[in-house]
Amino acid sequence: MRHSYFRALENLTQNTQLLLPEVIDQLSFNSDGLMPVITQDAETLEVLMLAWMNKESLQKTLDKGRMIYWSRSRQEFWEKGATSGHIQELVNMSFDCDGDAILCKVIQTGAACHTGRKDCFYLKVKPDNKIEISGDPA
Amino acid sequence: MRHSYFRALENLTQNTQLLLPEVIDQLSFNSDGLMPVITQDAETLEVLMLAWMNKESLQKTLDKGRMIYWSRSRQEFWEKGATSGHIQELVNMSFDCDGDAILCKVIQTGAACHTGRKDCFYLKVKPDNKIEISGDPA
Repeated sequence: MRHSYFRALENLTQNTQLLLPEVIDQLSFNSDGLMPVITQDAETLEVLMLAWMNKESLQKTLDKGRMIYWSRSRQEFWEKGATSGHIQELVNMSFDCDGDAILCKVIQTGAACHTGRKDCFYLKVKPDNKIEISGDPA
Repeated sequence: MRHSYFRALENLTQNTQLLLPEVIDQLSFNSDGLMPVITQDAETLEVLMLAWMNKESLQKTLDKGRMIYWSRSRQEFWEKGATSGHIQELVNMSFDCDGDAILCKVIQTGAACHTGRKDCFYLKVKPDNKIEISGDPA
């Protein structure tokens, strides 16, 4: 999976700058044209959710400064909070060493999870082969 | 993508307990049998990397208490740090509302990234259509 373009960047030193469109062109979207996006609260650093973007939703997110994913179930752009008001303002974005994952820090309005919980990772593994629900639904 | 099993869990209240093997059996692995795993530093809360697990590597990770991914490039189990010594001790694990993503908090020994940087997300989007390298290679 280690793409030769990204391999060539590995030895660049801190603060070296590259052109964003060139890097975006080299990102590894999967066979459905999608890449996983980790969305993290910029203040608490809690991981809020994992969703997916195609190249166009990535560009829309950068242009608009708000998270706009690709909904795999609805096969359409999914502007987070467009109906709920629970928008995510983009604070910063970064790509990983292989160019196949995106990390976004955001300012979250309201709950990130559609259940009303603050984040989506509310099924917590506990000792003794148990899972415990964290947080109440809204 | 919203699986009926996980939909039925949405209204459970805080601290409700479920059986882990039952939940694992219902997780949505993709057509390659894999699920994305977000690995987060348990102390700093920085997101270290995104990797993949199949059901067996998930079970091995829980059994051993160390992160054991599935390497898509090598098509084999990838015990993080087995050669580098940069192991990741599992602190806790959680699943998301749709049962298709895993979040793990870990204690990271050494660097998480194969380049020697502390995390893999060192390609930072900057203003004016630039990307800036964060951190020096080891």
